[in-house]
Amino acid sequence: MKERFVVIGGDASGMSAASKARRENPELEIIALEKSNYASYAACGLPYYIKGNVQDVEDLIAITPEVFRQKRNIDLRLQHEVIKIEPEEKTIQIVSPQGESTLAYDKLLISTGARAVQPPIKGVDSEGVFILRGIPDAVGIKEYLTRRRPQSVLVIGGGYIGMEMADAFYSLGMSVQIVELLPHLLNSFGSEISEEVENETQNYARLYLGHRVNEIRPDQPGRLSVYLSREVDRKEERVETEMVLIATGIVPEVTLAREAGIELGKTRAIITDEYGQTSIPDIYAAGDCAEVKSIVTNQNIYLPLALTANRNGRAVGSTIAGKKTPLTPVAGTAVVKLFELEVATTGVVNQEIARQYGFEPVKVTIESSTRAGYCPGAKPIKVSLVADRNTKRLLGSSMVGGEGVSKRIDIVAAALYGQFTVRQLENLDLAYAPPFSPVWDPVLDAARVLNGKLG
Amino acid sequence: MKERFVVIGGDASGMSAASKARRENPELEIIALEKSNYASYAACGLPYYIKGNVQDVEDLIAITPEVFRQKRNIDLRLQHEVIKIEPEEKTIQIVSPQGESTLAYDKLLISTGARAVQPPIKGVDSEGVFILRGIPDAVGIKEYLTRRRPQSVLVIGGGYIGMEMADAFYSLGMSVQIVELLPHLLNSFGSEISEEVENETQNYARLYLGHRVNEIRPDQPGRLSVYLSREVDRKEERVETEMVLIATGIVPEVTLAREAGIELGKTRAIITDEYGQTSIPDIYAAGDCAEVKSIVTNQNIYLPLALTANRNGRAVGSTIAGKKTPLTPVAGTAVVKLFELEVATTGVVNQEIARQYGFEPVKVTIESSTRAGYCPGAKPIKVSLVADRNTKRLLGSSMVGGEGVSKRIDIVAAALYGQFTVRQLENLDLAYAPPFSPVWDPVLDAARVLNGKLG
Repeated sequence: MKERFVVIGGDASGMSAASKARRENPELEIIALEKSNYASYAACGLPYYIKGNVQDVEDLIAITPEVFRQKRNIDLRLQHEVIKIEPEEKTIQIVSPQGESTLAYDKLLISTGARAVQPPIKGVDSEGVFILRGIPDAVGIKEYLTRRRPQSVLVIGGGYIGMEMADAFYSLGMSVQIVELLPHLLNSFGSEISEEVENETQNYARLYLGHRVNEIRPDQPGRLSVYLSREVDRKEERVETEMVLIATGIVPEVTLAREAGIELGKTRAIITDEYGQTSIPDIYAAGDCAEVKSIVTNQNIYLPLALTANRNGRAVGSTIAGKKTPLTPVAGTAVVKLFELEVATTGVVNQEIARQYGFEPVKVTIESSTRAGYCPGAKPIKVSLVADRNTKRLLGSSMVGGEGVSKRIDIVAAALYGQFTVRQLENLDLAYAPPFSPVWDPVLDAARVLNGKLG
Repeated sequence: MKERFVVIGGDASGMSAASKARRENPELEIIALEKSNYASYAACGLPYYIKGNVQDVEDLIAITPEVFRQKRNIDLRLQHEVIKIEPEEKTIQIVSPQGESTLAYDKLLISTGARAVQPPIKGVDSEGVFILRGIPDAVGIKEYLTRRRPQSVLVIGGGYIGMEMADAFYSLGMSVQIVELLPHLLNSFGSEISEEVENETQNYARLYLGHRVNEIRPDQPGRLSVYLSREVDRKEERVETEMVLIATGIVPEVTLAREAGIELGKTRAIITDEYGQTSIPDIYAAGDCAEVKSIVTNQNIYLPLALTANRNGRAVGSTIAGKKTPLTPVAGTAVVKLFELEVATTGVVNQEIARQYGFEPVKVTIESSTRAGYCPGAKPIKVSLVADRNTKRLLGSSMVGGEGVSKRIDIVAAALYGQFTVRQLENLDLAYAPPFSPVWDPVLDAARVLNGKLG
């Protein structure tokens, strides 16, 4: 009988695993179960769908179910929710429109992803309050925008998603307010970078930094009062809005795994070995529900990002198909476009966290230009760079600027992967032409200054 | 008595050396001799001056002579041409507006740069025929453009400078013809990349690839006939133009060095040790007149680029000031903007050259998109990647695309510096957001395909 590989969750990591397993092993039986009506969609594209850049939500479907079924011979079953894993019997329990059923597996991949944090705020279930995680949420928001035409929105959470959505709402002509509990937007990027983001964002939105949302109260249809308090002095304030978006982060969706007795890490995500296998043999985990290893600290972290999910899904699929492939450690590289700025980070930039991992962090932040100074279109760019004083090894970077930030952070990501010292980064032979950078690219400039500080 | 450091040539490497030496050693006497009336200017900016992006040629002066003299205590002497080096006496002979003089040195840096190749074509000294190397050339071209308003130009040479100038002339509304002896524009980038460049360029200029210029004949004031022959069959052709720009490459300016008995390399540029010292003690060389070491082949090459000149100038300045600093090997990273394209290269892309260095090159070229496919503004990008079959080590890359090429080549440059295998490049954790790249950046895509081919 054919070996059967069952995938729980039909998105980035799950469908990458299924596809890779198929390519490596034409004999395998592959079944992918997805509880929603959508598989293989680009979650990162949802803000662009709201914004109107992407016309049809179907355009976010990377690969259609038909292609999976017919071209890749993957038995993708939509609206199939797994409600239990029974490791001893090597079976799972499924609920679908056809009723309940049991399915046996030889190898199982848990790729259940993450879910949005629903903060315990009174009134979050009011009409006009939304959360964004999957396609149905996005469709709901779009429908509300079209039908009610709200003129204002309050975004709770100043992280990636909150900020991308604030940008999207602004571009739709709405008046935007942003509430963030922490003292800074994109707090993990470091205060020097966050402050630039805040200066920029203030041109487009009203900011409430270091504020907590206590309650959302519907005043009348289409009108909401939001009660905030300032963390520093508990001072209360009421603000009005016609719509609220909650973007207070995501947590790994591990209910199935936990109930099956699979070990979770300190981060509450699933721990795996270097091949993605969980504490229970033949059960693997990948994507936003699993921990990953940091290339900087060599420790497990929770870092739910699209490329990692795709890559580790592929690795697990390959391993299950018989070609053992280790997972790849991550640098934690991320970029976000906000209004006229690009903001990016990689590695460990937060000095407190660096100290927790035994490093003695030294940080510099420099200001430079995205092009040769005399070149039209040159824009300011700010680069923070952090290294360890003892080994002089690079630990991380954050950047903010008008252009060219996304790929500049990748230079540092490559350097982290190579465990470069700051001197090695400074010595890189980077491309130069006046429309693209100064002779000394801002990354080299930052490395030079940091090197001076390291002595 | 103070030690005296004399610099011959007041541009990138020379003034970087002088400035760095000053910072490291306040006691040193530093004299910099520049034969022209300009020092420390951005040669790479000249096409942008012609194009009109840079209004005043003075804007290309990175640091003024006053700053060098007053703030940096560097005795910069313009219009001082060195005509002889006498290593035995440790003196040099100078011609200046004040006449001839002799100057003693303790340490000497030859940073005489490069000069444009003047091909042996009949009629190159006709009115309306220009060459571009320094500021006076650029001023001459600009003056001719303003005074004569030529409607057409023929550019001889399809390398970086020729192409940047073709772009500049086109943007001024001129009709442009380009003649290149080799079969491709930007020939060293590899045919897959060059063909994209040619397709693009054909929208803006008439191309004569594989053609030799035999003669330029002035028909009447402001009108030139250029006689070409096709290399493959010697077929002759006459084309008309109102102006000619010669951009057939540069060669190291080593007359002084050669006459002083300093050893030159196979490339005809000056050989130095790892600290930039030539075959004669206390005489150093850096910048476009000297060879550099390739990070890929570990062999000396001639690669006159701005960042290398600046960096190696600094290293020599530091060494001379008493803080020994080795030169940095180069990857040979370069980028150029042409019409609506960005084109870049790093490392060894030419398979013939790779074989000469003992590699067994394997090459792939992939096509991808600069952004997520559903994102507006996504443009095509093509990436060539070359690796060695035996070690699976990365050797080089070329790219062409509508955006984001400049910094993407830098990712590969960092990988070359780290001597990454293709697998390591494929595993990099690069930044992803829909406006900046697909989930799998084109660089990762190319690495994946190349890895497959390497087996």
